[in-house]
Amino acid sequence: MTTSTAAGLPQISVIPSLPIAESIQVDTRGAVILNEESPETRDSRGIYLPNYVEPVSHIAVDIGGSLAKVVYFTRSPEPPNSPSIAATRGSSVHSDVSTPSPPSPSDLTPSSPITKLENHPRGALTPAVLENHNGGNHGPVIDGLPALNNTTFQESLLRRVSVQHLPGGSLNFERFETEHIDECIEFLQILIERSAQLNGVSIEEMQSSVKIMATGGGAHRFYDMLKTKLHVEVRSEDEIECLIEGLKFLSLIPDEVYFFSDELIHSVSHPTAATCSCQPSHPPTAQSSPQLSSAGPSSQPHEHNGVNGVFERPSPDPPKYAVSFEANPTPQLPCLLVNIGSGVSIIRVDEDGSFERVSGTSLGGGTLWGLLTLLTPATTFDEMLALSEQGDNSTVDMLVGDIYGQDYGKLGLKSTTIASSFGKVFKKNGKKIKFSAEDISKSLLYAVSNNIGQIAYMNAEKYNLERIYFGGCFIRGHAATISTLSYAIRFWSKGTKRALFLRHEGFLGAIGAWIKNIGEEHVDEA
Amino acid sequence: MTTSTAAGLPQISVIPSLPIAESIQVDTRGAVILNEESPETRDSRGIYLPNYVEPVSHIAVDIGGSLAKVVYFTRSPEPPNSPSIAATRGSSVHSDVSTPSPPSPSDLTPSSPITKLENHPRGALTPAVLENHNGGNHGPVIDGLPALNNTTFQESLLRRVSVQHLPGGSLNFERFETEHIDECIEFLQILIERSAQLNGVSIEEMQSSVKIMATGGGAHRFYDMLKTKLHVEVRSEDEIECLIEGLKFLSLIPDEVYFFSDELIHSVSHPTAATCSCQPSHPPTAQSSPQLSSAGPSSQPHEHNGVNGVFERPSPDPPKYAVSFEANPTPQLPCLLVNIGSGVSIIRVDEDGSFERVSGTSLGGGTLWGLLTLLTPATTFDEMLALSEQGDNSTVDMLVGDIYGQDYGKLGLKSTTIASSFGKVFKKNGKKIKFSAEDISKSLLYAVSNNIGQIAYMNAEKYNLERIYFGGCFIRGHAATISTLSYAIRFWSKGTKRALFLRHEGFLGAIGAWIKNIGEEHVDEA
Repeated sequence: MTTSTAAGLPQISVIPSLPIAESIQVDTRGAVILNEESPETRDSRGIYLPNYVEPVSHIAVDIGGSLAKVVYFTRSPEPPNSPSIAATRGSSVHSDVSTPSPPSPSDLTPSSPITKLENHPRGALTPAVLENHNGGNHGPVIDGLPALNNTTFQESLLRRVSVQHLPGGSLNFERFETEHIDECIEFLQILIERSAQLNGVSIEEMQSSVKIMATGGGAHRFYDMLKTKLHVEVRSEDEIECLIEGLKFLSLIPDEVYFFSDELIHSVSHPTAATCSCQPSHPPTAQSSPQLSSAGPSSQPHEHNGVNGVFERPSPDPPKYAVSFEANPTPQLPCLLVNIGSGVSIIRVDEDGSFERVSGTSLGGGTLWGLLTLLTPATTFDEMLALSEQGDNSTVDMLVGDIYGQDYGKLGLKSTTIASSFGKVFKKNGKKIKFSAEDISKSLLYAVSNNIGQIAYMNAEKYNLERIYFGGCFIRGHAATISTLSYAIRFWSKGTKRALFLRHEGFLGAIGAWIKNIGEEHVDEA
Repeated sequence: MTTSTAAGLPQISVIPSLPIAESIQVDTRGAVILNEESPETRDSRGIYLPNYVEPVSHIAVDIGGSLAKVVYFTRSPEPPNSPSIAATRGSSVHSDVSTPSPPSPSDLTPSSPITKLENHPRGALTPAVLENHNGGNHGPVIDGLPALNNTTFQESLLRRVSVQHLPGGSLNFERFETEHIDECIEFLQILIERSAQLNGVSIEEMQSSVKIMATGGGAHRFYDMLKTKLHVEVRSEDEIECLIEGLKFLSLIPDEVYFFSDELIHSVSHPTAATCSCQPSHPPTAQSSPQLSSAGPSSQPHEHNGVNGVFERPSPDPPKYAVSFEANPTPQLPCLLVNIGSGVSIIRVDEDGSFERVSGTSLGGGTLWGLLTLLTPATTFDEMLALSEQGDNSTVDMLVGDIYGQDYGKLGLKSTTIASSFGKVFKKNGKKIKFSAEDISKSLLYAVSNNIGQIAYMNAEKYNLERIYFGGCFIRGHAATISTLSYAIRFWSKGTKRALFLRHEGFLGAIGAWIKNIGEEHVDEA
């Protein structure tokens, strides 16, 4: 039974008697992305679901090569930090995606599991036993809470616990380094313990009400550890299936999905080597079909957006487009999902939701991070991104102009086109030239991003898919990366395909694992 | 007028009255690839053309981002160093492609232009003026030859000059670093001067008989320098067109083209992480379609070659196939040409010879060399290749097994599959682990090669082309690179497409420029 609300948002109702739900159903009416006090948690902002009721507590964990992502639902009748409910609603003009820098894996380390819980007090898990006691013990047990001396935290927890029978609550998001999986497990232990105490039930009762849905490679690798240390039920879920379920769910949350509109923001900076006074700097890569030499008459002013069909070639300095958020999302299948983690998986999703991992590349986030670790002083990925923003790739990249000395007009290549990434380094090294960390970072960030974009595009073309979603923790709202991917797709597709991004890009798998469990939950109840 | 020789080799005759020859015609009857005294010149071995007559001396120069390649024709009635005419004829069993290591750009430096001429005495250019003097002055002028005190050299030159009116001669190949283009120009100067002296004509007469066909980016960049310093006519030729002409020409030379046969040479070394006792180590990359999970039952002995359709995934340790040489080449169009220089160009060639640059990537030879320059002590590309042979990529690459702890059977991935190239480096660096140059080299060589193979394959698939030629100076007969590319193509195409290589891989453009001129020459004479 589906109806539309007055606002036009999709309403999905729970149908309890289906055997295995083919479509996972969560009540997303009125879902909003929450503001956070701290700007570092750009992609970990909670999602408030005012109409959702979770009888059993589920924690989803997606343990990848580098990061472990955690999703869990806690109850509250109204969103935390009211009245400012909505996060950036987005606009079609001059939105800057990159304002907050999300936490890098290393940034997460100083924040202990206990601190995490204190910083994000959004309620507790709900033990099933309380569901059976209508009007049962609501009073929280405050005494005996370990290391809990934050009054505000206690009060907010109390408030949430006391209204536990009303619908509504938040999806919460956390990240840990896989290399420090013990910290993740400690976090979950504390979460479970505190929830038990706040709800006034024994730890054993709480544990029997908690189920961990584990996905990602680490679901296999750490399965025993999770069971042994947390004493809860652990279920492994298929990684690719979870990614797709998470995508389908997230893409329905208003203002979750964003993309570059066709409105170009003209950059105030002028190009160093352009032949046209009105165009921003466009050093493209030597990849595209020569038909695009219609980009040729560059001395005349011309439009740069896809509307007129003229695209400059992809480059580390792509044109600056406005960010648009998908305010009224509709189901977005078929599509291609490009999940960029340590490595890259490319998954095709058909209109009916069936999916297939069709491609990928081992040149992913882990490659870039590894290279920049050895080549720059940066110790975190966010430091590397910051370095790249200051860099000039032309000191390390071999450009067409370096080889030809002029535009290679017949091929439609410009002198600032990159012929060989990092191609200047080999030649110069005989002269003991030192290359700056900034230039190295910019060159390699662009090279890796553009390569992913190229392979993604080729797969989208092969399977005739217009929508290309980019997930994974690689992007992090970094403007240059988003620009590179967006622009590459628009360029090679001549404007017919679109790159789409998600605020909770890194949590697709974890959300999917959580969602999958919900469907089966209602089956169990029937 | 075309006829076949008894040997079945194509015979192409010169038709002098065509306006612009659509097909470039060079008499390739009996063409053989020459042996060289020095093993370093694997890809620079001359090609002896016993039936060709060149009235005007042409030098072709292809100046790329890193290397300048030179091709010129000199006369001799019989091949140098007879009787051992043929280079490796090739066999289908246990051919080792990588025996001689070709000179790297740095290796070329110690060899001065004069030394080059002395090492490869294959005659002199022929000034046009002698063609006009039937029975003119044949006697060489020995006195006054600059710095020429090598008797053997003199004698061989004399022998060649004296039979200059008979057909036959050799195509000669040289390489220089673009960064030291002055050395290339000096070489050409000496070649022209000596040719003048040996033929007994003035330098001005010689210069009026020489034409330089210049292609590559440097044809534009160094055009003025070539004209000014050499005082000869210089013509620029389109780079892509020359690559294709060179490919068409070379692919007709017997034993020029080689590829991996379907006969697998079983490696004696056993895999470290394989689940099958009969298979070589196969750490594949996480790229392929899950349909290939038919590679699943790995505990049973099974065939590894494409004949039975079972392919292990691409890896830095691909199966060792025998090298086969194309002894009786036939025209090989349509095809895809993947030219790997500093950067990569991908060109599609139709059956009628028309071509289009359809794609490319900036992650090419220059990228790998640049990265390894900064990450290893190696100073030449051949040193880097040698390092890679000793390396173990699993110390720097993140494998599926590292993430999952076991085989990801549903996806058809093995635990030794590479999920993220260089993906272990970021994690470990917090612990100050030093990575060996060998491991780094192997990881990156594989990553770059496999990425090129993947993009090449996708384009071959898109344009429905079975033959994929790899050109450019990147490959250098290096077994691991050839294996990686060959195997990747065989794997993704399920055996339907083939990677093809050329001995003179780096000289496609130069040969093409030379060929182009020949066609127009005969037009001029008509």
